Amino acid sequence: MKKIKPSVPRGTRDFGSNEMIKREYIFSIVKKIFSNYGFQNIETPSFENIDILKGNYGEEGDKLLYNILDSGDFLKNVKIDSRTSYKNIKSKISKKGLIYDLTVPLARYVSMNRDKISFPFKRYQIQKVWRADRPQKGRYREFYQCDIDYIGSNSILCEIEIIDIITEVFLKLNYDKFSIKLNNRKVLAGIVEQLNIKERFTDLCISIDKIDKIGISGLNKELLKQNFDKKNIDEIIKIFEFNGNNEEKINFIKKFVLNSKIGLEGIDELEKILNYRKNIIIDFSLARGLSYYTSSIFEVIPDDSNQGSLAGGGRYDNLTEIFGLKNTSGIGVSFGLERIFNLLEENELFPKDFKNSIKVMVTNLGKDLLNYSLNICKMLRENNIPTEMYLTTSKLKKQLQYANNKKIPFVIIIGEDEKKEKKVTVKNMISGNQELVEINKILNIINL
Amino acid sequence: MKKIKPSVPRGTRDFGSNEMIKREYIFSIVKKIFSNYGFQNIETPSFENIDILKGNYGEEGDKLLYNILDSGDFLKNVKIDSRTSYKNIKSKISKKGLIYDLTVPLARYVSMNRDKISFPFKRYQIQKVWRADRPQKGRYREFYQCDIDYIGSNSILCEIEIIDIITEVFLKLNYDKFSIKLNNRKVLAGIVEQLNIKERFTDLCISIDKIDKIGISGLNKELLKQNFDKKNIDEIIKIFEFNGNNEEKINFIKKFVLNSKIGLEGIDELEKILNYRKNIIIDFSLARGLSYYTSSIFEVIPDDSNQGSLAGGGRYDNLTEIFGLKNTSGIGVSFGLERIFNLLEENELFPKDFKNSIKVMVTNLGKDLLNYSLNICKMLRENNIPTEMYLTTSKLKKQLQYANNKKIPFVIIIGEDEKKEKKVTVKNMISGNQELVEINKILNIINL
Repeated sequence: MKKIKPSVPRGTRDFGSNEMIKREYIFSIVKKIFSNYGFQNIETPSFENIDILKGNYGEEGDKLLYNILDSGDFLKNVKIDSRTSYKNIKSKISKKGLIYDLTVPLARYVSMNRDKISFPFKRYQIQKVWRADRPQKGRYREFYQCDIDYIGSNSILCEIEIIDIITEVFLKLNYDKFSIKLNNRKVLAGIVEQLNIKERFTDLCISIDKIDKIGISGLNKELLKQNFDKKNIDEIIKIFEFNGNNEEKINFIKKFVLNSKIGLEGIDELEKILNYRKNIIIDFSLARGLSYYTSSIFEVIPDDSNQGSLAGGGRYDNLTEIFGLKNTSGIGVSFGLERIFNLLEENELFPKDFKNSIKVMVTNLGKDLLNYSLNICKMLRENNIPTEMYLTTSKLKKQLQYANNKKIPFVIIIGEDEKKEKKVTVKNMISGNQELVEINKILNIINL
Repeated sequence: MKKIKPSVPRGTRDFGSNEMIKREYIFSIVKKIFSNYGFQNIETPSFENIDILKGNYGEEGDKLLYNILDSGDFLKNVKIDSRTSYKNIKSKISKKGLIYDLTVPLARYVSMNRDKISFPFKRYQIQKVWRADRPQKGRYREFYQCDIDYIGSNSILCEIEIIDIITEVFLKLNYDKFSIKLNNRKVLAGIVEQLNIKERFTDLCISIDKIDKIGISGLNKELLKQNFDKKNIDEIIKIFEFNGNNEEKINFIKKFVLNSKIGLEGIDELEKILNYRKNIIIDFSLARGLSYYTSSIFEVIPDDSNQGSLAGGGRYDNLTEIFGLKNTSGIGVSFGLERIFNLLEENELFPKDFKNSIKVMVTNLGKDLLNYSLNICKMLRENNIPTEMYLTTSKLKKQLQYANNKKIPFVIIIGEDEKKEKKVTVKNMISGNQELVEINKILNIINL
């Protein structure tokens, strides 16, 4: 027999039952809120045809896709020799990839089912995604995403509701030390248009996306490295150095992008949102990494931790177009479940009273008592009391010890006497008290 | 911009919101029952190191594993030329595979965490698994498994509770036309021992596993093809042709394996289970495909459909041994969610009254009414009423049409008058009645 040292692949994790209870607590809160806002749950496959995935996440993102090797003889009809490079052969031996996010599968789903769906389509989706990234604290190769999206509406109400949903999610999780940052890609487009360097839009976005890590001085260096003009760099830095409240920021940028139609459009969208919601912070240095965003972008930042954004998203006008569905604007937000989990853990915000999932243990004190004991279990389970039957016949002391170790709050002891009298002894494992009672009294004691 | 025809990989499926409601209905029922029996939820990664998976599913099973291509330059340090075969190169370019079932990951988990776990360990697990099988009705390449297992107990109570759980699951799903078939691998081992062909145990299991499809006459041919002795074939066929109730079957086989210690052990285990539970059918032709079972094996068959087993499982004494954990017997059952889903669908057993998940639509009749309308939405959502706000300002008729199409039962109409009077108009979309009411009366009407 082969022997293998058991381990999990790097960047993946097992979740034991204690973690699962906490994870399901988060899931149940977000699901409830999503559904109260009229979002409906869908699920898509964990792998997609690789052509669906590739090209949507930027060059860096594409590198992090996990490819699935074709089944059977994947080298059949593939010519290889010692000079074959992995890049040449990859697409020939792998036609599928694990999903990288839930947004691209959603765009594929909506395009594919456009005739069945009534628009605007509001869906939520909570699934695992995979990225072949370098694992570090809070960053895994396998993790859950938790997304809501509106597809087929360019109403500013989507942005407003998303701000409300974000607020409600974190407040329901008892966490209030967060900020919602808002920007608009059109404003960034306006800046490069105004500087007459429209073709540098993507480079600018990529550079300022790093500002969290490298700071303003780092951005200066980064832009120099990217061959931005010294004069332009000064103008750009001025924008990101500007300090003020939302109104002051808007007034400042308005003067800057004065002659850019797209820039003013972006500002107009920001102002509309500000008309209805004040609990946001305009931040022109917010760029978001993904390439498909076209106007509103936002991010949720913890005020008391440096572990990065807790949620983020934005509006994308053209994502479904690659799958043949035009003129369909979408907007969504993705909640970073793993970071939220860590945050609640660090701040001790999980409910203290998570119930031990097993409430009663029934003893197993002999073959002749088994049927009677099993019937007691049955009655308890029918009343939704999580009940464990001790599996082997052994000394009472050992069985009580087991219940004690597992922190099971009640033990029902059934011996010859109990069976004869058609009663049971209920032992409270916390107080140590025990009581001989009729069967129909058990629930009263346990539910006290 | 590239254009791609959107599709999903063969053997995988999208689940829309209607299907999700039904799937979650099944999940919630099984989860409740599992937890009432004292099982706790765990989750393991979707891919494992390939060495963990390989060798546990028989030759055929191993072929169905999905391999994940190594990231980066997977050909670095790999010598290839035109004669390289896919079998030679596979293990060099892929170190991970998608999980094939939940039992092997469980064995890996338990072995890895043996010091943290208190035994017997009772866990349930509901996750996607993947098999590169030929897709057909009810068989997919991506599907959910839904498993419970006891690890670290050889008590016959496990078998009894599993029978009870199976029964409870199907009855709670309103389906009662099923049979639970039971056998014991030790009885099959006894048969080959008695025939003096112990070395043919695996061949016999593989052959009789096909009996459902090929029948007794097909089994005859199959055993001939497998080079079983004519005399032995006659003896084997006699066993599987034997008709009778459980007691008669036991008596018959007892005489057959009279001199086989292991065979008699298997019979003894069957009899012990029969002492406590009668709602099972002994079937010596039940073999189960997987190689790791060592004694009790069982399968749940629908009486009114030919779509194969709805659940199945068995006891395995040595599964954790390959991961270094010895003397740890386990037993489990896996519910075939996809088949159960199809069965409930075919028999129209899903609840008729699945609530439309969106209960109220609030109108959007002008910019000046937006804040007031959003506040009504907020109040409804805080009261857990799934509420959709119509996203754009348009004619009332169009908005009512939208609610009607989406079968939303109530529309709250908010115009200038309603706002002035601090009231709303609630329209019942089924009766057509509408009523101008105070805000604090809305819930009464909607919850009627």
